[in-house]
Amino acid sequence: MEKPLWRPDRNSQIPLHLQITEYLRDKIAGGEWTVGTRLPSQRSLAESFGVNRSTVVAALGELAAAGMIEGGRGGGTKVVNHTWGVLASTPPPDWNAYVSAGIHYPNLPAVQEINRSEFHPGLLRLGTGELSPELLPREEMSRLLRRMADHVPDLGYGEPNGDLFLRELLASRMNSQGIKASPECILIVSGALQALQLISVGLLQRGSTVLLERPSYLYSVPVFQSAGMKLQGVPMDEDGLRPELVAPYAKQYGGALLYTIPTFHNPTGIVMSQQRRNRLLEVCQKAGLPILEDDVYRDLWLDEPPPAPLKAGDSSGVVLYMSSLSKTLSPGLRIGWITGPQPVIERLADIKMQSDYGSSAFSQRLAAECLSSGMYEAHMESLRTKLGLRRQAALDSLQRHFGEGLAEWSIPNGGFYIWLKLNRTAAPRKLFDAALKQGILINPGHLYDPEAGNRIRISYAYASLDELESGLARLAEIVASL
Amino acid sequence: MEKPLWRPDRNSQIPLHLQITEYLRDKIAGGEWTVGTRLPSQRSLAESFGVNRSTVVAALGELAAAGMIEGGRGGGTKVVNHTWGVLASTPPPDWNAYVSAGIHYPNLPAVQEINRSEFHPGLLRLGTGELSPELLPREEMSRLLRRMADHVPDLGYGEPNGDLFLRELLASRMNSQGIKASPECILIVSGALQALQLISVGLLQRGSTVLLERPSYLYSVPVFQSAGMKLQGVPMDEDGLRPELVAPYAKQYGGALLYTIPTFHNPTGIVMSQQRRNRLLEVCQKAGLPILEDDVYRDLWLDEPPPAPLKAGDSSGVVLYMSSLSKTLSPGLRIGWITGPQPVIERLADIKMQSDYGSSAFSQRLAAECLSSGMYEAHMESLRTKLGLRRQAALDSLQRHFGEGLAEWSIPNGGFYIWLKLNRTAAPRKLFDAALKQGILINPGHLYDPEAGNRIRISYAYASLDELESGLARLAEIVASL
Ligand SMILES: Cc1ncc(COP(=O)(O)O)c(C=O)c1O
Ligand SMILES: Cc1ncc(COP(=O)(O)O)c(C=O)c1O
Repeated sequence: MEKPLWRPDRNSQIPLHLQITEYLRDKIAGGEWTVGTRLPSQRSLAESFGVNRSTVVAALGELAAAGMIEGGRGGGTKVVNHTWGVLASTPPPDWNAYVSAGIHYPNLPAVQEINRSEFHPGLLRLGTGELSPELLPREEMSRLLRRMADHVPDLGYGEPNGDLFLRELLASRMNSQGIKASPECILIVSGALQALQLISVGLLQRGSTVLLERPSYLYSVPVFQSAGMKLQGVPMDEDGLRPELVAPYAKQYGGALLYTIPTFHNPTGIVMSQQRRNRLLEVCQKAGLPILEDDVYRDLWLDEPPPAPLKAGDSSGVVLYMSSLSKTLSPGLRIGWITGPQPVIERLADIKMQSDYGSSAFSQRLAAECLSSGMYEAHMESLRTKLGLRRQAALDSLQRHFGEGLAEWSIPNGGFYIWLKLNRTAAPRKLFDAALKQGILINPGHLYDPEAGNRIRISYAYASLDELESGLARLAEIVASL
Repeated sequence: MEKPLWRPDRNSQIPLHLQITEYLRDKIAGGEWTVGTRLPSQRSLAESFGVNRSTVVAALGELAAAGMIEGGRGGGTKVVNHTWGVLASTPPPDWNAYVSAGIHYPNLPAVQEINRSEFHPGLLRLGTGELSPELLPREEMSRLLRRMADHVPDLGYGEPNGDLFLRELLASRMNSQGIKASPECILIVSGALQALQLISVGLLQRGSTVLLERPSYLYSVPVFQSAGMKLQGVPMDEDGLRPELVAPYAKQYGGALLYTIPTFHNPTGIVMSQQRRNRLLEVCQKAGLPILEDDVYRDLWLDEPPPAPLKAGDSSGVVLYMSSLSKTLSPGLRIGWITGPQPVIERLADIKMQSDYGSSAFSQRLAAECLSSGMYEAHMESLRTKLGLRRQAALDSLQRHFGEGLAEWSIPNGGFYIWLKLNRTAAPRKLFDAALKQGILINPGHLYDPEAGNRIRISYAYASLDELESGLARLAEIVASL
């Protein structure tokens, strides 16, 4: 459980432990901590309140005396009664049963921990899949916000497919990449992740199988599994997914869809060659197997532009294509899009209307301003230079600290990631915990492939150059010591 | 299928019908209209292209000659081949099968039609559940956007629970309504609808039953049904839901959750009395039946503030409370929130992270600016006056046109709606179509209660005063004529 954000007032006349008693009593009596809730440990409460442990012990004593909490034999303390001094005659619903009853899978514990830890200041994040704050175009955004003030978007509910102006801009962007997409065949979504979510509940039957690269980003989000689908990994090599395996795998596992990140793959950084792309399209067309192309890293090339999207070579509508502005411009904007056959897009738009009535009008308008003002292109130019330097620094640090046989890696041509392969194996959980203890947050390989226990996803996009150097140095020590 | 947005260029040297041929060919060859797709009718194509029907016929003739489309015996025209002049050797995946295979229910056809029709300019919308553009605070938003330009929010991925500053503001707002909610027990969502979506997949088992008022807004969105739950209506009277029926219904139908809109209920406008609230809480506490309180209309009182939320009287954590800024400030902002027991909120936050990685940082910051600057309160003051006038105008028009025994209604004390009861019955679909033909979009009662065929939801929030008068006049004629 997250620790409370409140702290007692040191200037108050009321003793600290009584302030804490009152605060906790309110939390219980107000129903935030229902009967059955397990309290955070005394140590962590003391830490979050900024007091001595003995003060917490005194406060908990008051609550225990009043019959509200009880120390369990197992060590933990639980809420047993929500009223002060009176035995509750009617217990509340058993929320814990509800929490575990839903049909949606929880995130992997490691992913939950990463999601939370990312907001603990001071942590050194070596694997985070987003741009460092210093790489985000704050000043340009500020300029565009001022411009938007003169063109406030429509404040009402929006069209099912999203802001038309934004869709037109995206259509012409995609056109320049070889993709023919009309605005009515584009759906604006709240990030690429939402596109996956909509597809998982909108197009596939429960029990069907999604083929995907192994490893893949998709292993780290249980979006398809929660909708009752299975994932089946298909091996890759240095040119990407192996197309000759797709038909046999589809046959053997009954694949209903192939999810692929052909360009600057997450987590390996691999770019699928043009030949492979042609072959993959052929194979899928022949097998009648739809492709979902996730292209969120395309614009992040560092050496040369990547081959055209699969969708550009698709003349029969076998490819659904999705991308977003999260990796290049701003994840907080939550703007992505998907294009494909019109009936598919209309189906997904209908479900989107049922899920959240469309994406933020402000985000959509701001995204449109970024694209139409030329800001996006200018930003990408300068971003590529900076990311290139970061990549070099990360490779140098890796060479310095992991070069002597501790690990192996390839050099990515774009995107954010280096898929580090450790030459020794350590239990992934152990490595994660040991690093976290030293203030380093890593993204262990098993998040992206259950069997990649000896891999770590390194990102050169997030940590500062200094942090990359010191973090990788410390990480190498930890690896060597385990 | 939505009609194309493109129009041929009348100044071009290329004949119109050839431009159209080329446009449609690209749509088919590019995979937007896959093999099997049914084309819009000739008439509707002619309309959307702004040409004579004969021009469309000529263009379709070219495509048919090239073997790309074929007129069916049933009248419709279908795509049969995606390449020009060559028989396709490999058909694409059968997307239509995918579109109908997903586990998510489509919106009711009438709701889909309403969603789409709302963006056809010129339609007179008598039932729309949102503020008219003229009631939305565009200028104030423009001012706040300018302010935001000096405080650009964090552009990165956000915290699982949402922007902390916004959560603190909401906590203190709710506090003033009698609800004790700490920021760590609040989850920011993309509108109240998303809260429903998260709850449907996060807390309830497939096959369980949600109790709700009959009629209810919830009947118009298949969010719970798509997650495999059933809805069971509980009768209301003029004081709201009848609490004495809750326990027996819960027992008989195995209710797992009670969804209620106690304040300015959608679609009836009813406010649950204080006594009922106390009784309902008691009953649910006793039965261990969690309540989901949807309070999106609370601030829209016109005569006097409504009783405190159910959540304010909840000392054992039986109530999950949700609200949003859509009905008062801006639906396009897509900002809502939910509060309740901490483990429940953390579970929902986890699923939210899996669905879209959090709501737009810009919308969240703008919402916070609205609340913290005092703009929200000032806007509500003036909004109440304007809505009060609109309510009066709508009641006057109703009296004029439906007063002579054509319909009955009650006077709402706030919110948007009048739940009109027709004294004659007409097939709802017939009424909807007849009204649409005359350019009037209505929200028929059966959207909110499958058996309320003789009801219409009238909203005094959307249409202009003139439109309300002329629309209701015409509607009365249509009703009388059926
Ligand atoms: C391959 C891939 N797809 C989708 C996403 C999600 O992106 P968004 O922020 O647009 O939802 C990510 C982010 O990690 C990603 O790596
Ligand atoms: C009772 C009720 N709840 C929720 C919603 C959805 O609101 P939001 O725009 O915040 O998703 C509506 C809108 O029609 C409503 O009437």
